[in-house]
Formats: sequence, structure tokens, C-alpha cells
Amino acid sequence: MPELRKDPIIDRWVIISTERGKRPVFFIEEPPPPKAAMCPLCPGNEHMTPAEVYAVRPSNSSPNSPDWLLRVIPNKFPALRIEGSLNKEGVGLYDRMNGIGAHEVIIDTPVHGETLSNMSVRSIQNIFGAFKERVLDLAKDKRFRFTIVFKNHGTIAGASLDHSHSQLISLPVVPKRISEEISGSMNYYRQKDRCIFCDIIAQEQEDNVRVIYENKRFISLSPYASRFPFESWILPKNHESHFVFPSDDDGYRDAADALSMVLKKQDKVLNSPPYNFMIHTAPLGSGDMPYYHWHIEIIPRLTKMAGFEWGTGFYINPTPPEEATTYLKEADI
Amino acid sequence: MPELRKDPIIDRWVIISTERGKRPVFFIEEPPPPKAAMCPLCPGNEHMTPAEVYAVRPSNSSPNSPDWLLRVIPNKFPALRIEGSLNKEGVGLYDRMNGIGAHEVIIDTPVHGETLSNMSVRSIQNIFGAFKERVLDLAKDKRFRFTIVFKNHGTIAGASLDHSHSQLISLPVVPKRISEEISGSMNYYRQKDRCIFCDIIAQEQEDNVRVIYENKRFISLSPYASRFPFESWILPKNHESHFVFPSDDDGYRDAADALSMVLKKQDKVLNSPPYNFMIHTAPLGSGDMPYYHWHIEIIPRLTKMAGFEWGTGFYINPTPPEEATTYLKEADI
Repeated sequence: MPELRKDPIIDRWVIISTERGKRPVFFIEEPPPPKAAMCPLCPGNEHMTPAEVYAVRPSNSSPNSPDWLLRVIPNKFPALRIEGSLNKEGVGLYDRMNGIGAHEVIIDTPVHGETLSNMSVRSIQNIFGAFKERVLDLAKDKRFRFTIVFKNHGTIAGASLDHSHSQLISLPVVPKRISEEISGSMNYYRQKDRCIFCDIIAQEQEDNVRVIYENKRFISLSPYASRFPFESWILPKNHESHFVFPSDDDGYRDAADALSMVLKKQDKVLNSPPYNFMIHTAPLGSGDMPYYHWHIEIIPRLTKMAGFEWGTGFYINPTPPEEATTYLKEADI
Repeated sequence: MPELRKDPIIDRWVIISTERGKRPVFFIEEPPPPKAAMCPLCPGNEHMTPAEVYAVRPSNSSPNSPDWLLRVIPNKFPALRIEGSLNKEGVGLYDRMNGIGAHEVIIDTPVHGETLSNMSVRSIQNIFGAFKERVLDLAKDKRFRFTIVFKNHGTIAGASLDHSHSQLISLPVVPKRISEEISGSMNYYRQKDRCIFCDIIAQEQEDNVRVIYENKRFISLSPYASRFPFESWILPKNHESHFVFPSDDDGYRDAADALSMVLKKQDKVLNSPPYNFMIHTAPLGSGDMPYYHWHIEIIPRLTKMAGFEWGTGFYINPTPPEEATTYLKEADI
């Protein structure tokens, strides 16, 4: 059983994979990713994956048969276990609980080689729809406090399979970064009675030097204090705290369009870089939050320079966000 | 002039290198590190570096001549500029200041190819002594609030030169991670009237499953909630809040011995991995802190898996610290 352990000094939980403990030899001679003659995520190979928990498929087709447009399956090698109780306990001055959680894989497309940047907006909309369905379903499990939805694209960004897929992890704790954003935005709200994200959007629209793309309901921008070169965010222009309750009357159409545009531009300017994206949202258990605003953070993995950043939380970004914006905005796609 | 910009939502400053802005082409075809036929850090090539600000050399030798044991020089490509005023200002709802700071390089040894893990303890003691002298000298500059001392060893860990060197950056702000540790340990102190690091040391000595090495004044351990496989910390066993005022009566001898041992063990077990270390200390301007305890954090760079960690602050560590400890402790060196 993996464990969740809390750093006693700062408020951060870590997953410790006590079971599949990686020995030194693993790091010295890292095994190459399996040359999948047969891709386990391709149609026809459904028997190679755990049984699906959600799919987009014709109404007359049966679960785990090949004619799907999108599938969600439990991760075959989950970071957390779905069965069991949390068993929260103290160990001297430390705090731990069992590593209970859900870890699922969203197979974005049946087409091996298709990526988010070359698929249709409609397909991306399906992916957002799958995120929503799974997040809502997992929220019924009262052990979970938060579901992280994310994508690792490319080996450098941590993807272990080529076939385009996203992931989600449901956790019994709220990740530190999300808690920090919530308390930071709550402080701002206490002072101003306004959502800081809404204020940022207003200022960015006025300044107009860090706006990458806009459609009716969504805006993409390079954050003023970007940690990484070409980091970009996508936010709903109207206030929405929860990802799963979009005001987009056509179910994430504009979010999908904005994500598609940013990824296409990123591919063009940076020659299809590896990247990660994460959906930051209010925790599901919480009601509507007037101070928090869901958004997507996209980080192309361009730099090795994150050396001491890990240890200090201090970032050096070699590309000003205004320059990154100019490149992305002007990219002809 | 580089800029320091503050994330408006969470309390984190970022250095934006507005001058040497890196264009997309840099990331697409990253130039290989210069094949230094002549290493600028080797004795005899002092003319290739800025003039030294500190050195360990015979008393009859003159600055910037070749017969040194250790040199400290300003970084030729500094992340921050030493001249100028901070000019703190608001930009709409954002906060910025000029990127004022010191960025220095400590050339650990005159011997090209020597590393911290194969040099003498006495030489490492000299390096600690240089850190101390430079930190104290830079503390006289009232623009600076904190000096980060760190090392990037190996290309993957961010080193751009082979010749063994450490770095320091003096900043007009305290890095987020340090502030978090200080406020976390202050909370603990308020409740218990004890230093949390002192309590951790006591518990680790009793549990004896995460102690890698101990000498008279220092202890090395794998943190209970390690973020990374084989992460290790070195702490003074007696309470000390500031790195520059060690109670070690032989000037960092035991700290140097502990660092030497941990790095030798790490080399043995993990086949000389790239690594980063950082010195976490109370800010110099602050008086003695009964709740904060300086220490060194060493992170071997073994995993690419830090994909979504950057975005969520949530870490998955594939090697339990107890297992890492066993390997390191038993490594025969």
C-alpha cells in the first residue's frame, strides 16, 4: 500500500510508493520505454487495459469493444490504491495516511499519432466532457477531497506511452499549490471584494501585451510572473470557480477551442515541444467560491535549468512573458 | 536590467531575464555547451573570468594569479545585476522591482576533474569558509535580504561548466520555500516551545531507520516525507539557526565531513549521479531564531517524473526514504 506522508515543517503531502520501491539500479540503467509493437491504448487492444470506467462510443456498441472515440480506464500502474480506508495516524511528530486514491487514464483518441494540437475542437470537447464526468463520479467517494486532471505529453514531460492520453488523480488531500492559490485569492477578496483572476483578466485585456488568444468565453495569456518560458494559462472570462460547472452553454466548446489554439501555436513556435498541462479548480466539496477561478496551466518543458528551483521555490525565467506572447500571438496557424 | 516580479496570487517572486531573453530557436536547437579546450575556471586562465572577490591562496601571492586553492568570482552571466536601485513599484495589480542582486561562482578547487566527493574534507571546509565570508560580506549590502548558496553538479542538474563550482545568489527578497519553512517552524514553536528540526533529529535518532550518517556535530538523514528518491538532508545536531555562525569549534569540519560522506555514498550507490544542493538558513538580517535550524538539502537528479509536480506542488516519490537510507548507510566507502 502506498503512503501519503506530510512534510512536518511545511504543509505538503507526498505520495511514497512503498510497494514498487525503485532500487538504485533502476536509476542507473533506466529501462527504455517498451517498444510497443502493440500499443495497449489502440483500438482492438482493449484486453490489454483494465476495463473502461467511461467511454464515448456509439450507443449500440458494448463496453471494451473497439469502436470508441474516447475511453477512460484505471491506470494499470496506479500511484494510489482505490480500495481501503485512509487510516490516518501520527507517527511520532509525523502524519501519514494510506495512499488511497483513484488514478485513471483518459485515452484522448483512438488514432495513434493524433495529438491535442492536431485533432478537432470537437474531440477536445469530448475530452473535457470525460474529465467532467469522471471528476463528478469520483466526487461521490467521500474519501476524496480533490481530483487533479493533467497531461504529460512527450517522454521529457513524463509520458510513458506515445498514444495521446491524459490522466487524473483523486486525492484525500488538497494539493499544496491549489490550497495556496485558494488562500491567496481569498486574501485578495477580503480586501477588495473582487476575484483576483477576474481583475487579472481585466488588466491583461487593457494592457494587451500578454494576451495570446481570446474567443467569446475564454482567454489565454502569459502570466505576468511566469515561472517558465512560454508558460501559458487559459481562463474562462466570466467568473467560474469549478471546472465541472462551466457557463459555456455549448459544453466547453470555447475552452477546447482556446486549448487547441494555444497548443497549435506552441507547436509552431517551439517545434512541437513536450509539455504538461494541469486543470486548477476549486475543490468539489466546496460550494461556489466568489474568489477562486478555475483555469488551465500549460508548461512547455524547454529548460533543464530548474536546478535549484526545486529546492528554493525560486524561478529564473529566461524569456519575458511579453516576448513569448508576441511569438505565440503572431504564429500563423 | 532583469526584473523581479511577484506572482499576484501566491507569494512567490520570479526572476525574469528581460535582457538576455531566450528566443524560441534557443530551445529548439539548444547550443551544445562550449567544448572548452581551455577551461575558464582552471589555474592560469584567471584572465578569462571577472576579478576575484575572495580566494584561498598563499599570503605572498597576488589576487588573480594562478596559485590559489579556491576562488570566488562574480558570475560572468549573472541572473541579476549588482548595480542600481530596487525601484519597487506597482504595475496595475502587479508588483515588480529591478533585478538587483549578486550572483557569484565559487571555484571549489584548482584541480579540473576533482569533485566534492573525491576531494579532502579540509578542502570542503575551505568551501564552507568561502560561503561564510561571502554571505557575511554581501549582508552588508542593505538591498539584500537573503543569500542562497547552492550547487548544480552535472549537466542534468544545470551545471554549464565541468570544473567543480558552487554558486550563490543574493536577493532583495526571501525565497518562498525559505519563508514557508520559517513560518511552519514558527507555528510549531508557538505550540510546543521547541524547534521542530531539533524534535525531528531526536525522533530520527530514536527511530533509527532514516539516519544515513552521524558524526559529533552533524547528522544526515532521509526526510520522512522525501519528495525525491535518495533526497538527503544534513543538519547540525545542536540548535543553530544561521549557517554563518556555526557552533562547530573547528569551523565546519564536521559539516564538511558529513557532506563528503553523503556524496561519496551517493556516488557509490547511484553511480555518481548529477545532483543539486542548497543551504537553507535563517535570513541574515534576522537575529537568532529559536525555531529555525539551518541545514543542507541534497537532491540527486534521478527522475524525469516531476511532470505535473511543477504545476501542483504534489510529489510522487518512487523510493521510500527508509529503503534509500539502507542503501546509503550500508554503502561501503
